[in-house]
Amino acid sequence: MVLKRFSLLLTLFSLSFRSRHVHVLFIGFLPHPYRKNQKKKETGLSISYKKMENFSEWYSQVIVASELIDYYDVSGCYILRPLAYNIWERIQEFLDAKIKASGVKNAYFPMFVSRGALEKEKEHVEGFAPEVAWVTRSGSSELQEPVAIRPTSETIMYPAYARWIRGHRDLPLRLNQWTNVVRWEFKHPTPFIRTREFLWQEGHSAFATKEEAEKEVLEILDYYARVYEELLAVPVIKGRKSEKEKFAGGLYTTTVEAFIPANGRAVQAATSHCLGQNFSRMFGISYETDSGERKLVWQNSWGLTTRSIGVLIMVHGDDRGLVLPPRVAPIQAVIVYFHNSKTSEADVDRLRRAARDLGERLRAAGLRVEVDSRENYNPGWKFADWEQKGVPLRIELGPRDLDAQQVVFARRDDLTPAGKRTVAWEKIEEEAREALETIQAALLEKARRERDSHIRAVSTWAEFQAALDGNMVLAPWCERIECEEEVKRRTAPDTKEKKAAGEAPALSGSAKTLCLPFNQEHLPEDAKCFCCGEKATAFALWGRSY
Amino acid sequence: MVLKRFSLLLTLFSLSFRSRHVHVLFIGFLPHPYRKNQKKKETGLSISYKKMENFSEWYSQVIVASELIDYYDVSGCYILRPLAYNIWERIQEFLDAKIKASGVKNAYFPMFVSRGALEKEKEHVEGFAPEVAWVTRSGSSELQEPVAIRPTSETIMYPAYARWIRGHRDLPLRLNQWTNVVRWEFKHPTPFIRTREFLWQEGHSAFATKEEAEKEVLEILDYYARVYEELLAVPVIKGRKSEKEKFAGGLYTTTVEAFIPANGRAVQAATSHCLGQNFSRMFGISYETDSGERKLVWQNSWGLTTRSIGVLIMVHGDDRGLVLPPRVAPIQAVIVYFHNSKTSEADVDRLRRAARDLGERLRAAGLRVEVDSRENYNPGWKFADWEQKGVPLRIELGPRDLDAQQVVFARRDDLTPAGKRTVAWEKIEEEAREALETIQAALLEKARRERDSHIRAVSTWAEFQAALDGNMVLAPWCERIECEEEVKRRTAPDTKEKKAAGEAPALSGSAKTLCLPFNQEHLPEDAKCFCCGEKATAFALWGRSY
Repeated sequence: MVLKRFSLLLTLFSLSFRSRHVHVLFIGFLPHPYRKNQKKKETGLSISYKKMENFSEWYSQVIVASELIDYYDVSGCYILRPLAYNIWERIQEFLDAKIKASGVKNAYFPMFVSRGALEKEKEHVEGFAPEVAWVTRSGSSELQEPVAIRPTSETIMYPAYARWIRGHRDLPLRLNQWTNVVRWEFKHPTPFIRTREFLWQEGHSAFATKEEAEKEVLEILDYYARVYEELLAVPVIKGRKSEKEKFAGGLYTTTVEAFIPANGRAVQAATSHCLGQNFSRMFGISYETDSGERKLVWQNSWGLTTRSIGVLIMVHGDDRGLVLPPRVAPIQAVIVYFHNSKTSEADVDRLRRAARDLGERLRAAGLRVEVDSRENYNPGWKFADWEQKGVPLRIELGPRDLDAQQVVFARRDDLTPAGKRTVAWEKIEEEAREALETIQAALLEKARRERDSHIRAVSTWAEFQAALDGNMVLAPWCERIECEEEVKRRTAPDTKEKKAAGEAPALSGSAKTLCLPFNQEHLPEDAKCFCCGEKATAFALWGRSY
Repeated sequence: MVLKRFSLLLTLFSLSFRSRHVHVLFIGFLPHPYRKNQKKKETGLSISYKKMENFSEWYSQVIVASELIDYYDVSGCYILRPLAYNIWERIQEFLDAKIKASGVKNAYFPMFVSRGALEKEKEHVEGFAPEVAWVTRSGSSELQEPVAIRPTSETIMYPAYARWIRGHRDLPLRLNQWTNVVRWEFKHPTPFIRTREFLWQEGHSAFATKEEAEKEVLEILDYYARVYEELLAVPVIKGRKSEKEKFAGGLYTTTVEAFIPANGRAVQAATSHCLGQNFSRMFGISYETDSGERKLVWQNSWGLTTRSIGVLIMVHGDDRGLVLPPRVAPIQAVIVYFHNSKTSEADVDRLRRAARDLGERLRAAGLRVEVDSRENYNPGWKFADWEQKGVPLRIELGPRDLDAQQVVFARRDDLTPAGKRTVAWEKIEEEAREALETIQAALLEKARRERDSHIRAVSTWAEFQAALDGNMVLAPWCERIECEEEVKRRTAPDTKEKKAAGEAPALSGSAKTLCLPFNQEHLPEDAKCFCCGEKATAFALWGRSY
């Protein structure tokens, strides 16, 4: 066991023999996100920034070092490596089963949209137009009519909805697609969180009545909350968006909002929109009632994106790298066996076989387990490597463990001595399953505690200003757009000053409403808006947000 | 049972009361594929063309009437409705499990590619350049550097492969992605078969040795053959593409070729390419051997697309509509109960409950079953509706069946009296499972028989010419590109003449090699090329192809 304490030293030692590692130690310092000739990272030691000291550099290092992301030579676009894509597949599997059980069907609509269709709903197009990418050429010929790439598919799907929906028997119509979308934003990109191309699902429903539509809005929002809380172990706050922040062209938007304690930023985690009848009016989507009357349908749209992976990393990751909740971890437990120079060849062989047998038993028990049988790395290096990749549970097996028919469980989410314990071989399946459940619950619990400690209730502008940095602020509000714009103006950072302080543009920004939480405290009759002093109509949650 | 014989009459009768159906009967005749204000199809009677008489109109009707496809206002793009997408999900599930078990991992690379990367491999870019769609604008601003949309992802992935692969321990690297791709073709589009945007998977592997790469090429080709034969019940011929027909920039291409007996066209069903070292040379993908030497990797790429769904429709469909093989059918069996004016209200209720119970039993047995409880349609209409949508097995339950505790099984693939039989309730699970397996096997067997009857072996040009129309032709060949070009020239259709005969452009075209089948007859020592008379080196399969 002494060996483990030397893991850092050993790894440093190994570095001196592996020149490419040294290179990796420094790539984090290069200014441009796309680093030419970047060498493959093979060491567990490349996280040099601290999460609490330089969050944005820490994030950039973690996503590359853990092999989630690689940079790409088209700005704002990133490569989702197998680890990241596998997490996305698990999110897909969970959510897809839920929406299918609820009656939603998957389909696929073209990613190109004609100008005519795109511009049909005025508010909608105003919300998206500046970010729309246009294809104007094929080969060397100009297209007669340029086509846009979907930033979202309302205008692509709804002409078809107008054809398909004739009578009330065609309702509800509830379709979903898993696709890529493009929003050519000019804000500073952040992998997963804000990228020009991203993956998502978008659901689009049509109902005969507003009641049915509103019921679905909340049903879907609940699935989104469960993706975050049950799978990703990230607590979210459900609420409604302000008029200023709602989906362009919709009636109202509901949202689940997450929070990144390390940098005090909120993040819109997923949204479920009631579109009302704005789109059905513009696209002519109506049905004939039994009495022969024609009525416009009520519509919703709702989406969850690969941003969710970014939130997960930002919330749980630590200075050693990624920390994955067991339910989304592609590898839930890794078995690392080790020996020293005194271990006999026969014992090494027994260790190897024991590790393999335990791995097979755990896999047979339904766990996702890997046995690290790489002979050319020392245990310290291996430990750091798996920690960096966020594997929730490490199962250690050394010569003494072999004699005692036991292993040591080491929790990724608790690196203190309390995170380690000895487990007898015969109980390994049961104990591993339990440990993973404990880790999953502990991650959510810890994230919730940290998030809650960053919510401040205020009632005046002075209190609001004092509380804003690093927190979400709950304040009685008048709900007027002009008032939200006033808050934005008054909290706008001095750009020069921020630049001098070295803060990345993506992390600055004014305060805005995150949501009007569904879970509202009783608002006193005479409550005043914290900003303008007029009558307050609801508590709103404010913050600086991605 | 008499009722069923009147189904046609009944449906016609129902039409006179449902004016929108009448409309549907005529939309097939409209010349343009995108029909504005097209009404929802709700009848089983909208297939007016015969498969053997006017194949291309028949195909257009079937895909719309069965609700697989809807047209779209961007030329060459189509909407994959839930029925089509569900089939695609089943293909994905089957193939994804196979490649993952083999060690391939899924990832996601950006869909945009810079000009520099796209143009790196000369032959490759020449093969794709005319079809590449370019994004040149975002909102109203011109991009500084236009970006292309992936027609395939070799040039997107391989710069990353060059960074990730350093030593032999990084090999093999085997990644796959499920995505959309864009090839802005100007040939006449055909839904599923040739579209400007389509869905596919693309696998990209790198190996240390040619042997390993070549082994994977065949492994993947075998999975593709199994997708077609085991899932889609479509027989395919495995072989190697000629130099002229191989993948642009690759070393050689292997293929599975399918055949559409109804119009005598072959269709490239899926391809698995050995890229050799062309790309690794251009992109600098090399590894260090144990002795410190740097060696270029050997690469493969391989893809299967939504074209597979088109092949399935073309091979199995008939004059009543779609015929789905049970393994990919979203609904494998439909229970239709019916009664007549003399049936008592109590018996109607018993029928309804019996149908529901049988449905639940079949679902509990793992079958995908729907009970048609629509009260407002007559049985004839329902039968035609499910036939049109291709449901493999119809389970009929009438008043007499209720008394006898039996149902009638009606096979979609055999509409003769032989396709019907009586099954006792207590045996329904076992019998339904068996019936579906029988249908699956019968579809493949029938398709194979028909396909085989369209293969002609020839040895001279005269024989070749005589055999070409409607067949695949096997001929001894010299394998020279110039000879293939000569065949192309000599079999080029007279365009004017074809146009006058009303044949759609997609269905014309010159003869080309489909493949050099792996399964080669012994070639006599003195065999001569059927076209140029020079020494023949292999049998090649020729045909007119999509």
